[in-house]
Amino acid sequence: MAGLFLSFEGIDGCGKSTQAKLCYDALCKKNIKAYLTREPGGEKVAESIREILLFSKEEIVKETEVLLYAAARSQHVRKIIAPKLDQGDVVVCDRFVHSSIAYQGYGLGLELKTIWDINSLAMGSTFPDIVFLFDLSVKEAFLRSKARQEVLDSRESGLSSEPLKKDRIENRGYDFYEKVRAGFLEMSQDPRVKILDATKPVEVLHTEVMNIIWKERQGGATS
Amino acid sequence: MAGLFLSFEGIDGCGKSTQAKLCYDALCKKNIKAYLTREPGGEKVAESIREILLFSKEEIVKETEVLLYAAARSQHVRKIIAPKLDQGDVVVCDRFVHSSIAYQGYGLGLELKTIWDINSLAMGSTFPDIVFLFDLSVKEAFLRSKARQEVLDSRESGLSSEPLKKDRIENRGYDFYEKVRAGFLEMSQDPRVKILDATKPVEVLHTEVMNIIWKERQGGATS
Repeated sequence: MAGLFLSFEGIDGCGKSTQAKLCYDALCKKNIKAYLTREPGGEKVAESIREILLFSKEEIVKETEVLLYAAARSQHVRKIIAPKLDQGDVVVCDRFVHSSIAYQGYGLGLELKTIWDINSLAMGSTFPDIVFLFDLSVKEAFLRSKARQEVLDSRESGLSSEPLKKDRIENRGYDFYEKVRAGFLEMSQDPRVKILDATKPVEVLHTEVMNIIWKERQGGATS
Repeated sequence: MAGLFLSFEGIDGCGKSTQAKLCYDALCKKNIKAYLTREPGGEKVAESIREILLFSKEEIVKETEVLLYAAARSQHVRKIIAPKLDQGDVVVCDRFVHSSIAYQGYGLGLELKTIWDINSLAMGSTFPDIVFLFDLSVKEAFLRSKARQEVLDSRESGLSSEPLKKDRIENRGYDFYEKVRAGFLEMSQDPRVKILDATKPVEVLHTEVMNIIWKERQGGATS
């Protein structure tokens, strides 16, 4: 099995991280060499950049934000993703370049071409073979996020030593996420982007993801 | 006196930081509102990025490096430099965009147009009115650096509590610095770039710097 690069995308709360992990586990069970990673981060320098991006107490201007995401991606691609693909692994990545376009482009209003250009430098020739886009209404995503926060709050009331607060990006409002969702959907014109209905049960979505991967491996039609 | 943006450029060891400080002090003595700053850094988020850029123990690929410098610059420009210029200050900056072009472009061999494009996003419309380029042979710069290191080493043998080691960029070799110097000189075709002979005595150089500034303020020819 040659290297295959899979990215899992969508707005916060859409279930992509759960699906990325399920996909990785399923590949491992089939004895397929797989590697699970995430953005921003996934590599030591990139994780330092992630700290600044998500947890800085200072205001970060939008131009800095897009450049920091690209800097982390450049390091992640060249030190981790490309070498793994070269040795034939399946790389399962929780967020990649489509998140930059959706969040900083459609969400924050930076010019799309500029963000693609900057990310071309960051990615080089490494681009996902399949982009799984978990589409969910912002209303539903916010309800899920609220439910998750309540679980976290109860944990923090003494049951856990690891506080899990929402990050700097997750704290943006409803209108921002509407633009991000619309941006993701607009990018699904690319045949590599597969839209999945994120309201479906976890196991149903997982089966859909794996079916798309097996079809891709067989060189069949995947759209 | 309206805002004026001055950058001090050259290879490590050329004396630009000393000259930037002397210039700032001279402006203050004349009761001109001035602000002394430096790159990478000069602002809280940018200083966090500086830490990664200069002192990371992990390898940083050149594409990441250029993106991190631009990210720090974007933050520095929008939170510090542009507001200071808007209120009429003279901003004295130790390194700015010409260092990115010289070090990552000419030095590391990244495409010059790409670096300028990325920095256009980072800087917006903020660009130095005068760029002081302190030109020095690499041989002389290395001799100065060696002498400085010997002073630092003697300090570290018990006389100082503050170790001052060379940073990640300063540890690059002779050939790298030859390309960087040539790059700086090539950029001096822009009339805003003023080449100064960095072998001259500190006080002579300082007088030349201030004369160029006074001429610029009078709207006279400065080249």
